[in-house]
Amino acid sequence: MSTKSSSDKHKAILLICDGLGDRPSVDGKTPLQAAYTPNLDELSASGINGLMDVISPGIVPGSDTAHLSLFGYDPYRYYPGRGVFEALGADMELHKGDVAFRANFATVDDEMRVLDRRAGRNGSKELAEVLNGLEIDGVTISLRNTTQHRCAMVMRGEQLSRYVSDVDTHEAGDFVQDCKPLKDGAAERKTATIVNKFVKMSYELLNEQPVNAERRQKGELPANIILLRGAGSYEKITSLKERFGFTSACVAGASLYKGVAKYLGMQVLTVEGATGKADTNLHNKAEAALQALEEHDFVFVHVKDTDNNGHDGNFEGKKRIIERIDKELVGRLKDADAYLVVTGDHSTPVSLKRHSSDPVPVVIKGEGVRTDAVKNFDEVSVASGGLNRLRGLDLMLIMSDFMGYFTMYGT
Amino acid sequence: MSTKSSSDKHKAILLICDGLGDRPSVDGKTPLQAAYTPNLDELSASGINGLMDVISPGIVPGSDTAHLSLFGYDPYRYYPGRGVFEALGADMELHKGDVAFRANFATVDDEMRVLDRRAGRNGSKELAEVLNGLEIDGVTISLRNTTQHRCAMVMRGEQLSRYVSDVDTHEAGDFVQDCKPLKDGAAERKTATIVNKFVKMSYELLNEQPVNAERRQKGELPANIILLRGAGSYEKITSLKERFGFTSACVAGASLYKGVAKYLGMQVLTVEGATGKADTNLHNKAEAALQALEEHDFVFVHVKDTDNNGHDGNFEGKKRIIERIDKELVGRLKDADAYLVVTGDHSTPVSLKRHSSDPVPVVIKGEGVRTDAVKNFDEVSVASGGLNRLRGLDLMLIMSDFMGYFTMYGT
Repeated sequence: MSTKSSSDKHKAILLICDGLGDRPSVDGKTPLQAAYTPNLDELSASGINGLMDVISPGIVPGSDTAHLSLFGYDPYRYYPGRGVFEALGADMELHKGDVAFRANFATVDDEMRVLDRRAGRNGSKELAEVLNGLEIDGVTISLRNTTQHRCAMVMRGEQLSRYVSDVDTHEAGDFVQDCKPLKDGAAERKTATIVNKFVKMSYELLNEQPVNAERRQKGELPANIILLRGAGSYEKITSLKERFGFTSACVAGASLYKGVAKYLGMQVLTVEGATGKADTNLHNKAEAALQALEEHDFVFVHVKDTDNNGHDGNFEGKKRIIERIDKELVGRLKDADAYLVVTGDHSTPVSLKRHSSDPVPVVIKGEGVRTDAVKNFDEVSVASGGLNRLRGLDLMLIMSDFMGYFTMYGT
Repeated sequence: MSTKSSSDKHKAILLICDGLGDRPSVDGKTPLQAAYTPNLDELSASGINGLMDVISPGIVPGSDTAHLSLFGYDPYRYYPGRGVFEALGADMELHKGDVAFRANFATVDDEMRVLDRRAGRNGSKELAEVLNGLEIDGVTISLRNTTQHRCAMVMRGEQLSRYVSDVDTHEAGDFVQDCKPLKDGAAERKTATIVNKFVKMSYELLNEQPVNAERRQKGELPANIILLRGAGSYEKITSLKERFGFTSACVAGASLYKGVAKYLGMQVLTVEGATGKADTNLHNKAEAALQALEEHDFVFVHVKDTDNNGHDGNFEGKKRIIERIDKELVGRLKDADAYLVVTGDHSTPVSLKRHSSDPVPVVIKGEGVRTDAVKNFDEVSVASGGLNRLRGLDLMLIMSDFMGYFTMYGT
């Protein structure tokens, strides 16, 4: 009888469909139940299935904390704040002690009332450069425009803290909020002061820029202020390679996920047409993943548009992107010489238009898995599968054992 | 209706088949699926079934840490290091602060290259006596030969530490390793120094012994050195009796498991023919367990050979010992007036020849259990059982409630 040696190593692909999980809504079905998904169903039939609480039951995960958990990093310990992922995803360099923010170009009137939180979804690399490199009270500000109105901002200097409140009100019509310290400490007070000075300066410096004069002439909204939120504080952490021993790469369109990947030491690949939106090129992502698998042990593939459709309450749109994932990604990846894991980072039910704590379906296909009786990959069918109900934090440990990168505890 | 009083107490037998869990390999089946097991299947059909992560999902357990967990002792808190179990299993006395090791007779050449890590699996009580009682730097050494090449060694003296590295390289052909302190402390340095002196002395004292001269003449490997590993440090812990209130006994062949049992305060029974190997006398073990049940509330029965076959990649051998367990042990124990729990301490898939984190099947049969629809005792069938997916640490608490030894939390 032929048996394999215990030193055997295997590769793996983890496909995370953002906000994949849902609740029954149209004809008593979830989008995943309603979608035609022959490839996902084939995975379920040949693999082992279950439900997964990405953080823990009843906890509604954000996408950032959810991804940390899925990669085996307890978010209660390792979550650095969203700004860090935004800055890393924007390819900005971070040093220990830097405080980073998610930033938006926005439009305000001269009383600081927010007219559009996203400046008509229209940012400007040129305007970002006006503010990039500013120094305020000995702290250097870096600002980078990524896509549309989105930016990342990094503060570097002594004694900064992530524990400050958001300036972004999340509602048009409100006034720009003062940034406030969230703890009673010198670092928090200093950081809040600099944030407030920066926001004020951003208005003063941007409002009269020629770019904005032109916009006004064309009847467009000026990008005349920067709003900050999601303060995060950077510190290097133990990488996936250091923890598990395997190399990893990331195929994603949206910058938040690239940021998470970089934070964990993955190589982030640039994929043409990977946009994180409905028009994303899944063919290119599949090819990039297969290519990455030649050099790396573990490839993380992320698709954002399932979540977008959940937030928009768009059942048909969510069903459509799931069918594209099935055909264009899973159909191509399922024959790779690697474990294939498909799951979501949380549920975004179209009936709620927000994240929810409903557990997500998960399937693992590959050598030696205990194939169960589940035949369909959806939120209901997988519940009777061989994985039962897992926690997100356990997934990477389970995968690392399948891949042969394990450490025995005891003898 | 007649109901029993809440003060009723019940007995229980816990049968742990070492390394029982497996992955599908021959004809898509695990050894447990392939084996003819009418008695185990009868337990499943009348009992409640599930999967169990003995430590936690994705964690690959050693046998020692796994057993602690199964008996309700969190190994991350209570694991004293393997040497302690080896010494207790060898009936050596331990005092607080003693440092104990698993030891092997081995064969080295005069350059300290390891020719055979087990001296041809041939130890010697007489050679062990040569080293037993040595004193090095005020520390007394006790050495006892248990079975074949296996020994346990205990160091007693001031300021010793378990945080020292193994001398055993685990690979023939390597040189004997220096023992190194694993922490920067005086106790670690002292312990490592004494270990290195002892290993050197063991060679000097054993190499020229008449026993070894005879062996060389007969073309056999001399047992000319002692290799140490798995340092452990002894301290008395709260016993099972103190924690749960019931008395317990152990029926096992292999000394590691007897050591765990003794550590937890069980009475360890001597059973003729219980060898921990393929030739183990399961009939005698069954009779010993039934006998023990008359005096004790809880009886732990251990069978080692399932694990041995997993390590050897021997599908047929594993199937065969499972069939023997079914017939000779379960067939005999199933009618005892006691709860009967059957499970493993971890998986040792024949396809991997090592421990894995795949959860183990577990069945509980006895009065009042919520019988589920599972009809077969195997890794796939039990997944849909009424116990769902448990953790090892919870098993004893569940059993203690079934047995009537519970404490209510709150009122």
